[in-house]
Amino acid sequence: MSENGRFLPSERVLSGQTADVYFLNTRQILAAEGSNPVVTMEVFPSRDGILCGMKEAIALLAQVLPETGAVWGLAEGEPMSRREVVLRIRAPYQAFGIYETAILGILASESGWATAARACVDAAGGIPIIHFGARHVHPDVSARLEYAAVVGGCAGCATPAGAALAGLEPSGTIPHALILCFEDTVRAVEAFDRHIDPAVRRIALVDTFKDEAEESLRVARALGDRLWGVRLDTPAERGRVTPELVHEVRARLDQAGFPHVKIVVSGGVDPDRIAAFRAQGAPVDGFGIGSAISRVSPIDFTADIKEVEGQAIAKRGRIPGPTPNARLERIL
Amino acid sequence: MSENGRFLPSERVLSGQTADVYFLNTRQILAAEGSNPVVTMEVFPSRDGILCGMKEAIALLAQVLPETGAVWGLAEGEPMSRREVVLRIRAPYQAFGIYETAILGILASESGWATAARACVDAAGGIPIIHFGARHVHPDVSARLEYAAVVGGCAGCATPAGAALAGLEPSGTIPHALILCFEDTVRAVEAFDRHIDPAVRRIALVDTFKDEAEESLRVARALGDRLWGVRLDTPAERGRVTPELVHEVRARLDQAGFPHVKIVVSGGVDPDRIAAFRAQGAPVDGFGIGSAISRVSPIDFTADIKEVEGQAIAKRGRIPGPTPNARLERIL
Amino acid sequence: MSENGRFLPSERVLSGQTADVYFLNTRQILAAEGSNPVVTMEVFPSRDGILCGMKEAIALLAQVLPETGAVWGLAEGEPMSRREVVLRIRAPYQAFGIYETAILGILASESGWATAARACVDAAGGIPIIHFGARHVHPDVSARLEYAAVVGGCAGCATPAGAALAGLEPSGTIPHALILCFEDTVRAVEAFDRHIDPAVRRIALVDTFKDEAEESLRVARALGDRLWGVRLDTPAERGRVTPELVHEVRARLDQAGFPHVKIVVSGGVDPDRIAAFRAQGAPVDGFGIGSAISRVSPIDFTADIKEVEGQAIAKRGRIPGPTPNARLERIL
Amino acid sequence: MSENGRFLPSERVLSGQTADVYFLNTRQILAAEGSNPVVTMEVFPSRDGILCGMKEAIALLAQVLPETGAVWGLAEGEPMSRREVVLRIRAPYQAFGIYETAILGILASESGWATAARACVDAAGGIPIIHFGARHVHPDVSARLEYAAVVGGCAGCATPAGAALAGLEPSGTIPHALILCFEDTVRAVEAFDRHIDPAVRRIALVDTFKDEAEESLRVARALGDRLWGVRLDTPAERGRVTPELVHEVRARLDQAGFPHVKIVVSGGVDPDRIAAFRAQGAPVDGFGIGSAISRVSPIDFTADIKEVEGQAIAKRGRIPGPTPNARLERIL
Amino acid sequence: MSENGRFLPSERVLSGQTADVYFLNTRQILAAEGSNPVVTMEVFPSRDGILCGMKEAIALLAQVLPETGAVWGLAEGEPMSRREVVLRIRAPYQAFGIYETAILGILASESGWATAARACVDAAGGIPIIHFGARHVHPDVSARLEYAAVVGGCAGCATPAGAALAGLEPSGTIPHALILCFEDTVRAVEAFDRHIDPAVRRIALVDTFKDEAEESLRVARALGDRLWGVRLDTPAERGRVTPELVHEVRARLDQAGFPHVKIVVSGGVDPDRIAAFRAQGAPVDGFGIGSAISRVSPIDFTADIKEVEGQAIAKRGRIPGPTPNARLERIL
Amino acid sequence: MSENGRFLPSERVLSGQTADVYFLNTRQILAAEGSNPVVTMEVFPSRDGILCGMKEAIALLAQVLPETGAVWGLAEGEPMSRREVVLRIRAPYQAFGIYETAILGILASESGWATAARACVDAAGGIPIIHFGARHVHPDVSARLEYAAVVGGCAGCATPAGAALAGLEPSGTIPHALILCFEDTVRAVEAFDRHIDPAVRRIALVDTFKDEAEESLRVARALGDRLWGVRLDTPAERGRVTPELVHEVRARLDQAGFPHVKIVVSGGVDPDRIAAFRAQGAPVDGFGIGSAISRVSPIDFTADIKEVEGQAIAKRGRIPGPTPNARLERIL
Repeated sequence: MSENGRFLPSERVLSGQTADVYFLNTRQILAAEGSNPVVTMEVFPSRDGILCGMKEAIALLAQVLPETGAVWGLAEGEPMSRREVVLRIRAPYQAFGIYETAILGILASESGWATAARACVDAAGGIPIIHFGARHVHPDVSARLEYAAVVGGCAGCATPAGAALAGLEPSGTIPHALILCFEDTVRAVEAFDRHIDPAVRRIALVDTFKDEAEESLRVARALGDRLWGVRLDTPAERGRVTPELVHEVRARLDQAGFPHVKIVVSGGVDPDRIAAFRAQGAPVDGFGIGSAISRVSPIDFTADIKEVEGQAIAKRGRIPGPTPNARLERIL
Repeated sequence: MSENGRFLPSERVLSGQTADVYFLNTRQILAAEGSNPVVTMEVFPSRDGILCGMKEAIALLAQVLPETGAVWGLAEGEPMSRREVVLRIRAPYQAFGIYETAILGILASESGWATAARACVDAAGGIPIIHFGARHVHPDVSARLEYAAVVGGCAGCATPAGAALAGLEPSGTIPHALILCFEDTVRAVEAFDRHIDPAVRRIALVDTFKDEAEESLRVARALGDRLWGVRLDTPAERGRVTPELVHEVRARLDQAGFPHVKIVVSGGVDPDRIAAFRAQGAPVDGFGIGSAISRVSPIDFTADIKEVEGQAIAKRGRIPGPTPNARLERIL
Repeated sequence: MSENGRFLPSERVLSGQTADVYFLNTRQILAAEGSNPVVTMEVFPSRDGILCGMKEAIALLAQVLPETGAVWGLAEGEPMSRREVVLRIRAPYQAFGIYETAILGILASESGWATAARACVDAAGGIPIIHFGARHVHPDVSARLEYAAVVGGCAGCATPAGAALAGLEPSGTIPHALILCFEDTVRAVEAFDRHIDPAVRRIALVDTFKDEAEESLRVARALGDRLWGVRLDTPAERGRVTPELVHEVRARLDQAGFPHVKIVVSGGVDPDRIAAFRAQGAPVDGFGIGSAISRVSPIDFTADIKEVEGQAIAKRGRIPGPTPNARLERIL
Repeated sequence: MSENGRFLPSERVLSGQTADVYFLNTRQILAAEGSNPVVTMEVFPSRDGILCGMKEAIALLAQVLPETGAVWGLAEGEPMSRREVVLRIRAPYQAFGIYETAILGILASESGWATAARACVDAAGGIPIIHFGARHVHPDVSARLEYAAVVGGCAGCATPAGAALAGLEPSGTIPHALILCFEDTVRAVEAFDRHIDPAVRRIALVDTFKDEAEESLRVARALGDRLWGVRLDTPAERGRVTPELVHEVRARLDQAGFPHVKIVVSGGVDPDRIAAFRAQGAPVDGFGIGSAISRVSPIDFTADIKEVEGQAIAKRGRIPGPTPNARLERIL
Repeated sequence: MSENGRFLPSERVLSGQTADVYFLNTRQILAAEGSNPVVTMEVFPSRDGILCGMKEAIALLAQVLPETGAVWGLAEGEPMSRREVVLRIRAPYQAFGIYETAILGILASESGWATAARACVDAAGGIPIIHFGARHVHPDVSARLEYAAVVGGCAGCATPAGAALAGLEPSGTIPHALILCFEDTVRAVEAFDRHIDPAVRRIALVDTFKDEAEESLRVARALGDRLWGVRLDTPAERGRVTPELVHEVRARLDQAGFPHVKIVVSGGVDPDRIAAFRAQGAPVDGFGIGSAISRVSPIDFTADIKEVEGQAIAKRGRIPGPTPNARLERIL
Repeated sequence: MSENGRFLPSERVLSGQTADVYFLNTRQILAAEGSNPVVTMEVFPSRDGILCGMKEAIALLAQVLPETGAVWGLAEGEPMSRREVVLRIRAPYQAFGIYETAILGILASESGWATAARACVDAAGGIPIIHFGARHVHPDVSARLEYAAVVGGCAGCATPAGAALAGLEPSGTIPHALILCFEDTVRAVEAFDRHIDPAVRRIALVDTFKDEAEESLRVARALGDRLWGVRLDTPAERGRVTPELVHEVRARLDQAGFPHVKIVVSGGVDPDRIAAFRAQGAPVDGFGIGSAISRVSPIDFTADIKEVEGQAIAKRGRIPGPTPNARLERIL
């Protein structure tokens, strides 16, 4: 799909069904009064972060603004500061007023996620992170979450829809469900190895039935060189993955002749725990991260009208007229 | 739309595009091995809360399970405890395994929001709350947010799509944008009064250009008995709405002969601030709430396979076999 | 009045009426015993600060000590350290023992205030501060408070008595009372402008009836170049003055052609809030400060006898004999 | 002196020298405009406490108000709540406007002290407290401090001026200075006993040269039945008075046949330390308190005009018109 | 061994080698001066706790005091309060002065341990606790630690010497060392079962090589009814034993037909963790506790001379003469 | 006694009476099975510290290991890191397995004490520290405590047994008991001076009956040049020794002509209080320390089998095979 295509707005958004109803009322009143002033609206975030959602917001504006409209903004993935103007729209108000809710919501969700992803990526200091938090958000928006995680710096994500939006192939290992169906980790991994495209990495999940160190050696012996890595995902009931466990599994794999087998860590991983793994020198080759990104709050954005028909104006608390920001580029 | 219709899954969900890819791989492996065991899967939350999303999850399962499948669960809007089983599915695994991501995501998002809404509603002690947080989340999911807020106890919500899902009419007042276009609050309110269906309540926003107390009296004088209420939404730059401001506006409205005009408070309202308003006896007639609900984390849910072909099983950390829960009802 | 005159002790002090009665008893006992030993007494503070009250203490000692007495001390306004000797008196004990209470009290009150003023002045980094806290202390001592605030670095103070003590003209703007009597800010400011000596700065108080930004523009339009500045004094019920409000009023005044109008901020200002204004770059031209100075505790001073008739002595806990302090200068 | 006489305002107050200059300007403007509206002014505190200073405020108003003026208030020493109206004045504004600074200052200082005294008294649960904090404040106001301490519940105070204001005899023991002049505690106490009116209690200070327990026995043996008590005032350098010290001195006095000798404790005593003495059952017969009262902040009071010529009015943040308070009594 | 025999002092203690040398000097000085006053010495603890060590202290005094000596005290294992006299000795000072160090040390160590044990026992609410902390203290004193743990309420202890002192048989399970020597848990347990007296309970340690749940089932299957229980001792590197693990092992044992197999928990157990296990309803049948008892500080005891030759005396800070304590019983 | 002799194990340790009984069982099982594998055992601490007890542990191993055994370790008194291997034993397991309890206990107790002593010594920055905490631990282990304190850096200790172990003469001053027997400090000190070997320093305890400053001068006048120093040991009931007291006693001794008399401080001294004395420049010549060392927890040590018959092995949570540590030296 072309990038344009990827970010097209849905019919529900275009029709105004997702707008706060008072914007629909406002459009009706202005139309009844025969008023359609050219206004300048500015959008800014409530805290520092990584801007995400601009491609989607622009795709929407491109569809609804008349020729006379103009849009300026920062680029997708740029860092932004609290209260910095990241988007400026100048157009007749009836053309876009009802989309304020949608535009703010797109930026809020996606920037919140991209910012959280960046915090994980920064903590990991070069160790790649795969995002697999789709299970923590509604499926109608999970692809946006995965896309934003990649914008924030994640190396991969888990759903086909999210990966498509991000321009990647989806990443995955083996779920507990497969192992439970086979009632044995080695049997499940061997079946995976038989049937799945050899281009897909073999990463065995090793905490389902046995101690992780024991199971790691069993799967390494079963798959040999075809095993790319093991994933440690120890449940909270067993104390989660510890840095010492990674050290030990690494040592036991090396001692048994499997130095090529990598170690991926998942299960409640977040920036603090990443930092703890690194502080103790745990030889982690990759992290899988879910709720550390999905659980963060959206970054609230605000839209302010700063000019009406060329006249500087603002509500109380804001400074009338456009806010200077040399970083803004003309987009539409 | 019938309730059934309201909660139908989207094509993307049905097709598996929003599934974690390892579930798709698992289905492929089992099919290749000719294995399709009947499994019992249980779903439980990671913290206490209000269960929401069950109608949508059941609508999905109703489409994909074979006749032999069975589903038990708690009802939409029920309180649930940490680690309590709220949904149990027994069916051939290939039929539903790929929907684990979607089902967990639906419950996670909507239960998180409903639980946050309930905290606001409990704090408000009978004062109605209108939810208008659509602007804080992506528009593809904002109707779910609004629906969940209503399940949690909110009296209304702001978008047509959300209200439709919740079976209500959308609620709204007047945005700052309308007032800025008219460059005066009274003129904007009068235009609203001219053109909008008289069945819609006239609630004037009174912080745009002037002090709230002064503006409240101006709009009350302009609309008289047709004015239902005023909305105080003082920006943070002006110190937000304080309990004392509500007391003063109430007193000034009463002194000027407008005891019928109600006072709605919005702007950064959350359970703590609601409690503060109530502790100081502020005469609030309604709260408008946004990010206090949208900013909360999803409630993570976990799905566990507990039986395979009638045999109790579980991964490490979990107890094999179905978990007794007398509250569960047979649904499908 | 000559400086000497300004700091003369009152009759009540001289008569011993304000002395702790046990000092009066001590004088009576020593007289009855025919004992009047030459003692050396030292005075030191309980914490670091700015020394204030020395002029008044010296004026008292100058009246009561015989020719044989001698006094050493630090100068008014000097910084002093915890437990540093700031005053040393050597004289026959009957001549000055009863004034211990008064001398300690003078230094305690005035040094406490001067120290607090210095903290404000240091926080303000060059922005002038006017003290107007007379309303927070008893009128019999308010001039001392104002004098001490000026010793601590304030640029002005508000009462004629305090200003006289400090050698300044009193400073003032316009009270809420005047505006309430005129029932309109602009009318009150115009009356002030008509009747008050043109040498007095016109500083309009702009929070009485209307939003501060709106009222600032009204008074600027009414007085034009004669307006020296506006004072923002937003009450706590309206969220106090915020840095954003100063920014906005500055911008709106500039946009309306009144860049010459200065902005003075008052209302609960203290060093922390001054720091916050400066950290956010708020364009404040002056602060008005009241309780941040008047509310601080006095700095307790202690007087110790360290020699009796040339013999080193001290009570338990103190080291006998005079304490070396090279900073002390002979004063009397 | 008659009570009236005791609280008469000073000439400096009456002349307006202690008024904030903008009130003097206001009077000048109103006079120039020929305006002298009857206004209602209300005074309220910023926190809960004990009201003190009313007698003095009323004495001032009695001198300056015309016959047509009226005053309502709470009585001296009454408890008051945050923001409760404690004083209401209705009179032509020119008659009393310039006294706002003085009236607020009187109430602020004295109520602050009385409230702090009450906290000590409440902590002491019936053990009498003598106030001797004159040394911590300027002598021009120390009598007000002592008066306020007695209004707050103290049983005595130390300066003749303060005691006169409070209608008591001044209380005192023996200062360290007397003992240092005699170079021995027993000799000093014996001299006291020789020369001071037998009606005055003999209370020996016992920490000057020797351990308190040893010195207590020495003075008890020297004065026998004439000794009323000992005062423990251990300096911080010796660890202050501890509850165990009181227990031990009590035991040693009793064992030596001096059960009649009482124990007074001083030195950094405040409500927390009083509570600690009582929690450990220390047999204290009296506390001497200084800076625990003098160091507290004044209670800021605010004066609001709520009516002008019978018309309800108020500045922003306050409710127009008189505030109902059934506790107010007509005073003038 | 008779109880008397068990607590006899060692030759080093009797000879004074373990006394602080200044007590030896004191004996020498008194002897040289021909002075041997009868003194009353009292001993009290610095905090609340369980008194332990009295039997040993009394056994020492019984050997060294002359006929004329007398001893009063509380009984072994009694609760005691901070500063309560628990031991009183009246005898010629030369006879026992040099044993002050030893007596205080005995009481300090053993009371500290008994008090810590009681805290564990109280937390466990009836679940038996076995003490095995000998490895955390020097072997010359480990039997005293074990004895004190039993006095504090522990149901058993691990060393022959400690058990003998406490009048019990030593308790033990299986160390990791045995399993490592056999390189398999089941083989080690079977060897234990072959060679150890059948009267000794078979308690298998199940965390050495495999996941605890898996290993529990293996040993249960191997020993059947002869298996008394399993011990969970998960190392910190694997997240320690969690309440959930106990629940799961219980469930899996029950499901496999081994409801008779009990579960013992060890590894960093202390009162807080015991409380957490109980709060989550974990079905624990016994706790093994080590450092939670051995790591606590001794309870410092103080010895005071309160009478010399019948004359009440005391050092500064203490009250002369014996302290009344109705709980004291005559012992010698 | 030769150093070897000093650290010989007791018969109880050699006989296994102080071993956890499961090690005795293990030896019995291995013997019955005819198994005596050569194992490598490693010992490491649970936190950073000063290693102490190695001489005693090695003396034990030297007695029990066969010729084929080998031992590596760090030296007594070396700093060690958390989890660093400090002792490695390779020998047939039956020869030494039962001594694991004793070896760990020796290292735990003594390293804990040495580490605490080092913290005091580091805080004191060169001011010598005498240890006298024997009274806080059982006399069977007090010599070990004193030895460990000296290993940690203390300059002396108080019991003959402890001093012998440390290769020193015991240090002591004068106990309160001696002074109480003489009922006067000066008389007691004079008796000490008459009868005790002149080689022993005369250090007078000066807080028993009188204020410390007063008593210091009395003993200085009594003994003159023969007085080496005074010890301040003010009880908590008198506020403990303060830095100001040391300053004052120093000044008063100097003023009275006794600059040669040193000042030793004791009573609740620990690293924090040492730091406070030094921060205030208190002229302390020595500290006496007791519970600051005796109250610390042992440092738990762990012993792990890492090889069996040349095969790398380890329990879960540990890495199989010997742990590299270049600091280890061959000892046996």
